[in-house]
Amino acid sequence: MTRPSSVPPPVTAVLDASSRWLPARLGEVEQLLRRAVAGHGELLGDDATATLDAGGKRLRPMLVLLCAGSERSAGALRAAAAIELVHMATLVHDDVLDDAPLRRGLPTLAATSGRRRATSTGDLLFSRAFALLAEEGDARSVALLADASVALARGELAQRRDAFDLSIDEQRYLERCRLKTARLFECACLLGGRDEGLREFGAEIGLAFQLLDDVLDVSGPPERTGKARGTDLLDGTVTLPLIEAAASDPAIREVDLQALDPVSAEALCDRIEATGALARVRARALQMVVAAKQALEGGDFAPEQRQLLSLVADGVVQRYS
Amino acid sequence: MTRPSSVPPPVTAVLDASSRWLPARLGEVEQLLRRAVAGHGELLGDDATATLDAGGKRLRPMLVLLCAGSERSAGALRAAAAIELVHMATLVHDDVLDDAPLRRGLPTLAATSGRRRATSTGDLLFSRAFALLAEEGDARSVALLADASVALARGELAQRRDAFDLSIDEQRYLERCRLKTARLFECACLLGGRDEGLREFGAEIGLAFQLLDDVLDVSGPPERTGKARGTDLLDGTVTLPLIEAAASDPAIREVDLQALDPVSAEALCDRIEATGALARVRARALQMVVAAKQALEGGDFAPEQRQLLSLVADGVVQRYS
Repeated sequence: MTRPSSVPPPVTAVLDASSRWLPARLGEVEQLLRRAVAGHGELLGDDATATLDAGGKRLRPMLVLLCAGSERSAGALRAAAAIELVHMATLVHDDVLDDAPLRRGLPTLAATSGRRRATSTGDLLFSRAFALLAEEGDARSVALLADASVALARGELAQRRDAFDLSIDEQRYLERCRLKTARLFECACLLGGRDEGLREFGAEIGLAFQLLDDVLDVSGPPERTGKARGTDLLDGTVTLPLIEAAASDPAIREVDLQALDPVSAEALCDRIEATGALARVRARALQMVVAAKQALEGGDFAPEQRQLLSLVADGVVQRYS
Repeated sequence: MTRPSSVPPPVTAVLDASSRWLPARLGEVEQLLRRAVAGHGELLGDDATATLDAGGKRLRPMLVLLCAGSERSAGALRAAAAIELVHMATLVHDDVLDDAPLRRGLPTLAATSGRRRATSTGDLLFSRAFALLAEEGDARSVALLADASVALARGELAQRRDAFDLSIDEQRYLERCRLKTARLFECACLLGGRDEGLREFGAEIGLAFQLLDDVLDVSGPPERTGKARGTDLLDGTVTLPLIEAAASDPAIREVDLQALDPVSAEALCDRIEATGALARVRARALQMVVAAKQALEGGDFAPEQRQLLSLVADGVVQRYS
């Protein structure tokens, strides 16, 4: 890993438990990522390298590698890099769409290079992902990643369609989370391995990941999440903490999300927290982690592999970013 | 074809000369396109269908089909639809980047649905392209399209980097055209057939296509091109007509592109035209069409196939949109 100091604790736990094969493998993925964004003109090199350096947990590549097992596989390394490139592309585009100044406490590409260059850089990262997978000549992997990318875009569109609409219910929220987040986790697992239990494992931890994200948007603290509390609310995104809170405090249903400003958004966060909604959503996320682990029970996994996948599952609900 | 009235004359010539197999095949591609954008939620359906209906010449799908020959091939049909989806995705993103109100005389998706939905719709069209190709299980096709998509994004970034810079020379302009336009034409040809001459054929007609686009931006007339004269100049894009004109009228080199408004952009178009630059650039484009046809001479093509490819090559420099 190139930035060990920024790696959050649960991921560190997985790395520590993996007898060094995983860190070495992730290092190879970093090399592939750097190669994938290099050599496209000096300016793009800078933009894309900045995006790489902004880092992240490399959770999806880690899932690919863990599901592939401890034996080194060039295909799994490429798939791990490819899925991170798609993830990075969507983050770059999301920041353009949201006019976001910061991500993980650092200026976004949209903020430093303008939305034109950022949009094209996103397109380029996306294209490179498929170019990398196609090098391997593996049509199953391309189909998996392409279908997950379709789901991502549909999730983004669903989020725009449903923005500011407090009549959104839990079912619709969960469907959006499936498209926007869970399908890519599921894809990561299936890029690594072919055990059918991995599909449910990936989907459940992906949902849990998104639920926790939505809890952190309300709870903060900003110095750990790297963004202000209520950022999603200001954007009109109706999340499960808000839906849960509105069910126990009907006055919340009367809030006009369009009229929120950063101060009233923080106040709304306090009101949501006061209903106990965050604890209930956290509990739901933990149930999903349990379901994820159960999905692996029938499968044919090495003991270490099962243990590491369990650590990742625990990790998605024990984090701040 | 669903909109025969909007099909420009050179394309009609190809369709007329193809004993009806090509129109029928293009009809199948239309069906694939509609299926590829349907079933993703009612809202996306509307957006994407509007993008489809905004039409276009379907020149890239036509190249795929012509290079594949008159025998029906499911793989060629899919590839034809996939390349048009990538082309559509880039148009949708370009319109977002340019805040363009109109394309082909119709409101852009960015204008009618906002840039957020348009950006996501572009991402979705892009993902569907790869999903469609991967269904066929053909890694060569995926690699070709992914590499061409990388080139497209690099070309877009190069255009941003070089914007408003009148020191851009012909070589740099041609390199940008290769990335932004010619590589996708080349890809269309290679998706259809494997003859090595097709690579050069596609590249040359792609370059000729872009040169003519840049001539039309200066010459208009707007009622035929569907956009105001000097649109690219206002955007800071330094094209070959401008480079050529500046070489014979050094005063043009002193123009501050950043200070242009629609009226002074039209005046600059008149000055470019007065130097004779447009005729010289048209002549270059015609040379490229000749080179394209020569590239096919050694290859193993059916007589009808060669004749139709020749008609397409002529068509790229005999058009207004």
